[in-house]
Amino acid sequence: MPQPQAPLVLTLGDPEGIGPEIALKAWAALRPGGPVFAVAGGLDILSHTARFLDLPAPASITDCTAAHDAFPNALPVLPERPGSPAVASIEDAVSRVRSGEAAGLVTNPVSKAALYAEGFAFPGHTEFLAHLTNDMAMPGERGPVMMLAVPGLRTVLVTIHQALREAITSLSAGRVVHTARITHQALQQDFNIASPRLALAGLNPHAGEGGSMGREEIDILAPALEQLRSEGMDISGPLPPDTMFHAEARERYDAAVCLYHDQGLIPVKTLDFHGGVNVTLGLPIVRTSPDHGTAKDIAGKGIARADSLIAAIQLARQIAQNRNQAR
Amino acid sequence: MPQPQAPLVLTLGDPEGIGPEIALKAWAALRPGGPVFAVAGGLDILSHTARFLDLPAPASITDCTAAHDAFPNALPVLPERPGSPAVASIEDAVSRVRSGEAAGLVTNPVSKAALYAEGFAFPGHTEFLAHLTNDMAMPGERGPVMMLAVPGLRTVLVTIHQALREAITSLSAGRVVHTARITHQALQQDFNIASPRLALAGLNPHAGEGGSMGREEIDILAPALEQLRSEGMDISGPLPPDTMFHAEARERYDAAVCLYHDQGLIPVKTLDFHGGVNVTLGLPIVRTSPDHGTAKDIAGKGIARADSLIAAIQLARQIAQNRNQAR
Repeated sequence: MPQPQAPLVLTLGDPEGIGPEIALKAWAALRPGGPVFAVAGGLDILSHTARFLDLPAPASITDCTAAHDAFPNALPVLPERPGSPAVASIEDAVSRVRSGEAAGLVTNPVSKAALYAEGFAFPGHTEFLAHLTNDMAMPGERGPVMMLAVPGLRTVLVTIHQALREAITSLSAGRVVHTARITHQALQQDFNIASPRLALAGLNPHAGEGGSMGREEIDILAPALEQLRSEGMDISGPLPPDTMFHAEARERYDAAVCLYHDQGLIPVKTLDFHGGVNVTLGLPIVRTSPDHGTAKDIAGKGIARADSLIAAIQLARQIAQNRNQAR
Repeated sequence: MPQPQAPLVLTLGDPEGIGPEIALKAWAALRPGGPVFAVAGGLDILSHTARFLDLPAPASITDCTAAHDAFPNALPVLPERPGSPAVASIEDAVSRVRSGEAAGLVTNPVSKAALYAEGFAFPGHTEFLAHLTNDMAMPGERGPVMMLAVPGLRTVLVTIHQALREAITSLSAGRVVHTARITHQALQQDFNIASPRLALAGLNPHAGEGGSMGREEIDILAPALEQLRSEGMDISGPLPPDTMFHAEARERYDAAVCLYHDQGLIPVKTLDFHGGVNVTLGLPIVRTSPDHGTAKDIAGKGIARADSLIAAIQLARQIAQNRNQAR
């Protein structure tokens, strides 16, 4: 089992994106007090980027236990593994979390197109992580479920990267129940909330107004709510989607269960565009990531913001500590 | 033609909702400096509510020209017309704007269910107003188009009160073009923006990512944008819906054209729940309304907030002045 005081491990992400730059900027920001982290591979690109940013050269370390000593002086970098840099970095980082050498995983963005070109066989990053950890024991229901977190708002998604039309068609009471259960257990174990309050968004305007604008609230969401409440869950809804994300409404729940990508992401990114964190719930390992892509259009210019990565590192540390206390 | 310095006229709305209470509260807030407005009918309920709120008794006036003198001392109220109070108030108010006696119309919320029970034959408030004004000449393309406005963000809706599934099915390039044209002319005439910049939202996550998550951006939105740009319009898009509403992104456009109800309303109500204004674009008369319903659950308790109605009155006054200058 990972030790909570073990360092975190950060993947390199797409070497042509902003990953190396924000890793160094996050290190510079967190250097005084941590959380301590090491990057899995990428010494050459990180050294090059450090020179460009006028930061100290990264330090080569052999395993995560050396990160604590190195961190105050330089960004610790683990040995490169053979293979595609982005994929090898993920595999190495996951193996270090599995062994307990690292307390949690923070992933830099990857380019799906680049990975597919190399024969990558998974729909995305998160599915790959689920595969790499699917033989590990874990308490409760297994995900993954995607959470977006900013100060004052957490949303989780029942459907994610699907056309909106298909997202609606693929909704089911079972998927809503599954997402809510994993969210509930994560709020307890990962966020240290003893009695989580969930809020389920409706699909249609005004949550359908009693069936006059769509029946999904009646046919899909009501049975899901009935099931979840019968299990003792505190979950409100289905709520009109437009009136559930203002400050006063957000005080009434710990996480909003959203039915499609933009329903969950519009409020998060409207409230805090730069500081959002993506948390994968229902994995046996701790995993967070910044809430943005590879941003190749601004890579190499020194202008990338590390806010989201820094928040992801801080949240991974917090989750690792909470999980350990929950056990 | 309405005179810009004529008063505004406010409808009573549902007498059992918060309309009377917020009308009085708006008067109390605006009494020192205006904008001056009169309420169309409802003297009894307004007098009763004024006593409950410990405000001066409303003043009965015979037409809007008397409102200026009355306003510093009491809320001016026009004579009651026969018929259903909510409908008669709308009909009377519209006729006063048509005649030029009032400069613009502000409508309090009505209960559709109550109106339908009385044989009201229109899908909603706005359709009724369009009917009452459809014989009036107006420049440009005729709406109505619904805009939601808060400080720093204006959104307009291509589809409004439809189930999300049906909203998607009913999207067409023609509807997008129609909505954008009316928005463009309203930004010029009503909001005094000489060269409006519009932004069109995508439908799917990441605006479809080149067709990999839905084809509406390619099949519907691209042809609409091509048409609008060929007419000289400055319109960006289709933009990923989740990243177009944060502060920095909002600086790049004057109005966002949104494809469905919650895409446009989630950002507006997340940013400013209490102060949103609903503006009807593409009508021959000026019309605004508060961005909330009848709120019967809190009516009669004295706790209703008039923020949205006050903002609606102020915006109607501004639009009336801008329209007059544009002519």
